Amino acid sequence: MNASIASAAAQPETAHHWVYSFGGGGADGDATMRNLLGGKGANLAEMSRIGLPVPPGFTITTEVCTHFYAHERTYPDGLTEQIDNALAKVAAITGKTFGSTDNPLLLSVRSGARVSMPGMMDTVLNLGLNDVTVEALARLSGDERFACDSYRRFIQMYGDVVMGVDHELFEDALGAAKDKRGVELDTDLTAEDWRGLIAQFKAIIEEEAGEAFPQDPFDQLYGSVGAVFKSWMVPRAITYRMLHDYPETWGTAVNVQAMVFGNMGERSATGVAFTRNPSTGEKSLYGEYLINAQGEDVVAGIRTPQPLTRKAREEAGVSSPSLEEAMPAAFDEFTKYCDALEAHYHDMQDMEFTVEDGTLWMLQTRSGKRTTKAAMKIAVDMVSEGLITSDEALMRLDPAAIDQLLHPTIDENAERQIIARGLPASPGAATGEIVLTSAAAEEAAAAGRDCILVRVETSPEDIHGMHAAKGILTARGGMTSHAAVVARGMGTPCVSGAGALRINNDTGMIAAGPTKLKAGDVITIDGASGEVMLGAVTMQEPELTGEFSAVMEWADATRRMTVRTNAETPADAETARKYGAEGIGLCRTEHMFFDGDRIVSVRQMILADDPADRQKALDKLLPMQRGDFKQLFEIMAGLPVTIRLLDPPLHEFLPRTDEEMEAVAADIGVDADLLRERTQELHEFNPMLGHRGCRLAISYPEIARMQARAIFEAAVEAGNATGSLVEPEVMVPLVATKAELDFVKKEIVAVADAVMAEKGVTIPYTVGTMIELPRAALRAGDIAQSAQFFSFGTNDLTQTTFGISRDDAGQFLGTYERLGVMEKDPFVTLDQDGVGELVKIATERGKAVSVDMKMGICGEHGGDPASIGFCETIGLDYVSCSPFRVPIARLAAAQAALRVKQSDGPGAS
Amino acid sequence: MNASIASAAAQPETAHHWVYSFGGGGADGDATMRNLLGGKGANLAEMSRIGLPVPPGFTITTEVCTHFYAHERTYPDGLTEQIDNALAKVAAITGKTFGSTDNPLLLSVRSGARVSMPGMMDTVLNLGLNDVTVEALARLSGDERFACDSYRRFIQMYGDVVMGVDHELFEDALGAAKDKRGVELDTDLTAEDWRGLIAQFKAIIEEEAGEAFPQDPFDQLYGSVGAVFKSWMVPRAITYRMLHDYPETWGTAVNVQAMVFGNMGERSATGVAFTRNPSTGEKSLYGEYLINAQGEDVVAGIRTPQPLTRKAREEAGVSSPSLEEAMPAAFDEFTKYCDALEAHYHDMQDMEFTVEDGTLWMLQTRSGKRTTKAAMKIAVDMVSEGLITSDEALMRLDPAAIDQLLHPTIDENAERQIIARGLPASPGAATGEIVLTSAAAEEAAAAGRDCILVRVETSPEDIHGMHAAKGILTARGGMTSHAAVVARGMGTPCVSGAGALRINNDTGMIAAGPTKLKAGDVITIDGASGEVMLGAVTMQEPELTGEFSAVMEWADATRRMTVRTNAETPADAETARKYGAEGIGLCRTEHMFFDGDRIVSVRQMILADDPADRQKALDKLLPMQRGDFKQLFEIMAGLPVTIRLLDPPLHEFLPRTDEEMEAVAADIGVDADLLRERTQELHEFNPMLGHRGCRLAISYPEIARMQARAIFEAAVEAGNATGSLVEPEVMVPLVATKAELDFVKKEIVAVADAVMAEKGVTIPYTVGTMIELPRAALRAGDIAQSAQFFSFGTNDLTQTTFGISRDDAGQFLGTYERLGVMEKDPFVTLDQDGVGELVKIATERGKAVSVDMKMGICGEHGGDPASIGFCETIGLDYVSCSPFRVPIARLAAAQAALRVKQSDGPGAS
Repeated sequence: MNASIASAAAQPETAHHWVYSFGGGGADGDATMRNLLGGKGANLAEMSRIGLPVPPGFTITTEVCTHFYAHERTYPDGLTEQIDNALAKVAAITGKTFGSTDNPLLLSVRSGARVSMPGMMDTVLNLGLNDVTVEALARLSGDERFACDSYRRFIQMYGDVVMGVDHELFEDALGAAKDKRGVELDTDLTAEDWRGLIAQFKAIIEEEAGEAFPQDPFDQLYGSVGAVFKSWMVPRAITYRMLHDYPETWGTAVNVQAMVFGNMGERSATGVAFTRNPSTGEKSLYGEYLINAQGEDVVAGIRTPQPLTRKAREEAGVSSPSLEEAMPAAFDEFTKYCDALEAHYHDMQDMEFTVEDGTLWMLQTRSGKRTTKAAMKIAVDMVSEGLITSDEALMRLDPAAIDQLLHPTIDENAERQIIARGLPASPGAATGEIVLTSAAAEEAAAAGRDCILVRVETSPEDIHGMHAAKGILTARGGMTSHAAVVARGMGTPCVSGAGALRINNDTGMIAAGPTKLKAGDVITIDGASGEVMLGAVTMQEPELTGEFSAVMEWADATRRMTVRTNAETPADAETARKYGAEGIGLCRTEHMFFDGDRIVSVRQMILADDPADRQKALDKLLPMQRGDFKQLFEIMAGLPVTIRLLDPPLHEFLPRTDEEMEAVAADIGVDADLLRERTQELHEFNPMLGHRGCRLAISYPEIARMQARAIFEAAVEAGNATGSLVEPEVMVPLVATKAELDFVKKEIVAVADAVMAEKGVTIPYTVGTMIELPRAALRAGDIAQSAQFFSFGTNDLTQTTFGISRDDAGQFLGTYERLGVMEKDPFVTLDQDGVGELVKIATERGKAVSVDMKMGICGEHGGDPASIGFCETIGLDYVSCSPFRVPIARLAAAQAALRVKQSDGPGAS
Repeated sequence: MNASIASAAAQPETAHHWVYSFGGGGADGDATMRNLLGGKGANLAEMSRIGLPVPPGFTITTEVCTHFYAHERTYPDGLTEQIDNALAKVAAITGKTFGSTDNPLLLSVRSGARVSMPGMMDTVLNLGLNDVTVEALARLSGDERFACDSYRRFIQMYGDVVMGVDHELFEDALGAAKDKRGVELDTDLTAEDWRGLIAQFKAIIEEEAGEAFPQDPFDQLYGSVGAVFKSWMVPRAITYRMLHDYPETWGTAVNVQAMVFGNMGERSATGVAFTRNPSTGEKSLYGEYLINAQGEDVVAGIRTPQPLTRKAREEAGVSSPSLEEAMPAAFDEFTKYCDALEAHYHDMQDMEFTVEDGTLWMLQTRSGKRTTKAAMKIAVDMVSEGLITSDEALMRLDPAAIDQLLHPTIDENAERQIIARGLPASPGAATGEIVLTSAAAEEAAAAGRDCILVRVETSPEDIHGMHAAKGILTARGGMTSHAAVVARGMGTPCVSGAGALRINNDTGMIAAGPTKLKAGDVITIDGASGEVMLGAVTMQEPELTGEFSAVMEWADATRRMTVRTNAETPADAETARKYGAEGIGLCRTEHMFFDGDRIVSVRQMILADDPADRQKALDKLLPMQRGDFKQLFEIMAGLPVTIRLLDPPLHEFLPRTDEEMEAVAADIGVDADLLRERTQELHEFNPMLGHRGCRLAISYPEIARMQARAIFEAAVEAGNATGSLVEPEVMVPLVATKAELDFVKKEIVAVADAVMAEKGVTIPYTVGTMIELPRAALRAGDIAQSAQFFSFGTNDLTQTTFGISRDDAGQFLGTYERLGVMEKDPFVTLDQDGVGELVKIATERGKAVSVDMKMGICGEHGGDPASIGFCETIGLDYVSCSPFRVPIARLAAAQAALRVKQSDGPGAS
């Protein structure tokens, strides 16, 4: 076992290198060769290379897999010879020979693609055993029962995995044997019992597969290798690749290794470990093991695995000894390897190991999965420990996962009865009684009762109910439906599009499949998973740790882009500042139009017969809007605030049902028929493409004038109050042509001039536009002649570029994702190829006219890490997102800046 | 009168040339200088240059107007001197001196921009008369009455036009004077009477304008010149320029000419003439004149002008002598000039002339306006006469006007009582009784009664009613509303968006302003003008002349692009072939889904709970669709036919109202509640951006398979029947990504393979896609890897690029056009800057991948001449338009080809 692996150069130069050996303190490959050797194979080579005890073996490369599929499932020339050579090397190290009846080399075969992939073949152990070699193993191990058990395990795995025999048939036969013997545990079966089962298992295979279990070890080996390759193309693996955009051409590697046995008696063991706690991030060895067991036993759950350390055992209050206590030498060696691996990989490792008769073997290492909280602690700790730089720490973290830290989450150990699933529309968990109307939500909140607002879909009129509710659940709508967007903005948990819900507003009954619910019943929703659960479920409250602050500070020091927030209420603005927002990138003034009294004035304005009546209603709205803006300006003192003029079609402010119509008519003092008629007139077939945005300001310039006056007067008042003048950025929405912007800008400038003259102050304001229509992007050069800033409204730009209404996309985008026709919801992650090209065109054409023009993004994508990365590459100045996504954006912007620094600087996408 | 004008070079070299003289057989300018001299001035110069008798004078250039507005309404240095020089030249030619009290030179002042423009100042005559010179005129003419009449005319015109005095005040004073004298005609007033009125007119001016009528001839001249310049900025002129996209910087010129008097006795006359009949195109002098009259008298209508020729007089059955008979020498001279002008300008001329005491003077010539019919005859005749080439003839014709030749038109002399106005949505006139429902339309048609379908708006369910009606009138919807598009496709006259109509479907009453109508009342609509008239109005039926055929043959020989049609019914397809369509560019299969029985199967398909039930409904639809396609393929034997798979959202096929719901539920045998629920499920907020197009084919591939099978089976059957196989082009709508097209294409190819195998024939088919979303245009390179042709659906592409729903655009596009924010409706004429760039990008990227890929346009723009011009410049292969626009497209394509030939060939836009 001490011969070293020959270097790759020792192979014939002319032959393509299909097989990479490792073990005995050396290896052909290394950790950088993940694409060729797969993740597992590359790390096995690396561990061997740095001197860790790895059972010797070899990796058949991913290129063989590619060749296999490119050549009608045949192997390349030379593969057999290279495998023979590799087996010879293993034999040289172990002193055992594959196929030998005296001292047989037994092998494990494992798949290993670049990334771990569900559906792929896992493991075949004990390969090489047959009716003859089993006797040699019995003889060599001195344990006939062990040898027979090993053989039957192999037959069972091979029959299942390679020959496709239903594994339950084997379990049934094993169960019957135990019943017959009157025992409960496998360990109670004798060697003789196993021999009987071996015969039975072979018969099952012959009957089910139509051919005999192969006795030739080489047949077994090639059968298993072929099974790994074939598992690359099982439907589950194909679907997974499609979903993750992993190309088929990657292929999988096959890892073949000398067997080591954790089940060779009481001096043997097998286990899994993390170098740090993957749940909390604490720097202490974490894991479990079983004495006298093979890996599959740890997973099977028949025996309870034990903690690795004494400390962990004591904390868990169990009595069976820890590895530290049971095998102190192996434990000491293992902890040494843990430190070595962390030092080598600069990351927390997830490892598998086996102790065979007192000797420690490392079977696998890889970067360990961890919770967001752990990830943050580990990253910050490793920077303190000098293991990684703060830049590396920033790159290690998943920005999207940061959301988890800001919201309550379901306790991972909690029992949950899931009654429906929807989309994870706004993170966080919430428990409360079901309410079906916004009014009921407000009542419940007023009475101090937590509630979940359950609706088929929400509309702007539900804003108050949404504010009052602890969580929002809708039966329809996607990730960017009204409910989802508003909930994320508020930081309220939301599950949208739970299609299984049948909500009957008349009876107050809700059917969730077989479960019947009614208003008042308590449910819990998890906005991070999309799950809807019956009753209250235990939760964990969020806490922002010192590590969070440290990471955010590094991010702020690193990023180039500013991070603003989309906010219109003081509460949102304050939350956003708490999370580090550097101004408001989008204040949607219409959200202010629904509040209490003002909706009455808004409706009077809409229903006005002439400009004079309209002006009367606007005069009532002016002080309210001014008050709103003043509050925002005070909260954002000294920071820029972008205010968008009224955007939605006016009919959104009018009632819908007949009852509402009557009530509203009485409320605002008009005839119900007139109201109905006007509502009818304002009806639109496609309101998204209708009379909205700057089109309203052009039809009713008096509305734009009122809003502009409110903005400028508020700026003056807030400036006086705080001593720090804001810079209002007045934003004109839905511009398609320069003429539209010119028209509205003229009105705004006139009002600004008037207010400045009245107040005798200079207000440093700008007028800019949303770029949210393809035409605006294409004509950005024209528009830049009038606009002082661009804000990319990528929600609407995505809708128009794709011709997809996000409110209606639920009808088919699900099918698209299921069929692999569309990989990512373009409303969640910016479609860089299409929508992104328009954004890029607009930035280029805009900057060609006005090189210093401020440009940012204020669509939902402003809080999506991948999209933020794109914004960095095209050189935008800021991103703006909902308050709870500000930390995500700060981190993502920092990562994006680092990534660009590593390439060629901004603009070099 | 025989001194000639010095050339421009005689002016001081250093001075800018602000004034251009003409007359006496020479001129500073010529006809090419229209931009500088205006149309009238350039032609006066040209006539003088080629030796026609033009009263000498000069043109103050458009640059003076531009200077006037750029410099606070002041004149440039040197202008006065140049005017003095020019006046001296006129004096030299006429022997009269401006301002002289002995032999005063009198002037006319006329405006003259590049194009004639409503709102611009017209004419001031007799300028130079005052209390003193009027006596000289009396003396020189020997006619005191004439002199006094001339003076009062001048005061009246000057007071009105230059000093802004209401012209009715003068008319009232004149009327009172006649009453007082007990006479009816101006000619009954004596010199003394006129002297009294002169005093009164001067008093009126002083009272109204606050200053006296100027006696100084130079004040009169500069006052009139200033009035011309000021009229450039009157609101009506500004609006007109905005509508026609004429820049303000063009400015207007001013033409100042020596007066000649047609009212100097019986040997004097004035008249207007066309070299050919502007109504029919017939080659014979056409016009009218008055003896002893000034130009304004011809227009005023108090005396009836007489025909110019004896033939015309005899045909009109009048006794007063024609010019030919009354002044044979002047007539002969005039006809000589007519021939000379036509020969010189190579076009039919519209002229003004005056005979002063037996001497003929030419006052104006310009290309004459003419009817489409005349234009065609004149163009064809001029080719025969060798005056122009056939290419020139093609360029002379307005393609858009050709529509008039294909539809009945309102007799131009008919009395009409207009009760409402809408948009000229589909040309042609129609008379019939009002029907308010499609059912009523079908009943009326079945009973042999003509009807006009009057609706608030139409929907696909109205197709039958629209077919049955003679005309369609809607209260809402733009030029590309459903009603407009379908009506144009059918060639049915349509007026859309007649906003003044209030239609009450319950009572059957319609209010059109003060006019109350009800179902059954007869109205007439003119789809070319947008007028709605009460009762029946006399019409002219269309006839296609030999000239039409000649022009179309030239066009066909000239154009590069193919012209196809958008058609789905056999009737449309046959009409289109009659008009020269070379295949079908767009067959909208969904239009076939509404017919009689099949809507039942369509609804069953939509309501099916599972694929099996859906297949059952599809099996019923298959033979119907196959039959439809077979008919089309037979009509289009040997030509390409592009069939678009089902495009609209499925809810368009379901009923809307509760009553319809019940009826349909009974019809197709399902529960009304189920139907309601399913309809509710299918409801969309923005159906334009919803579950439609290829999204349907991906959700329900069985629908696409049925349609593909119908297409291929029909191709085989039609091929067998006609002996000439069509090439079906299967078109996948609303593609945004290559993956979508790939998915649907796979289904189509599979069906094609199956049908070809079953039938044992090879069908030469292609699969392509609509490019109708911005993303598809941007990703055309990807999509071209799968698509075999591109068809630009510029209707939807315009909607998504602008973010404007054409069904909702009526709410604001009118305001936009009124305010000048948008010049042209982008649904009528392709927006080349925005939408056009996307089309261009798509063609370039598509051809980069597949250089020979067939590309065409099938949106409404395919029948719009300006848009067709754009298609030529970017090198599209074909345009496709509704059947009645095929001739327009043939001519427009020929013109586009000629225009490109004159520049750099296709692609050099």
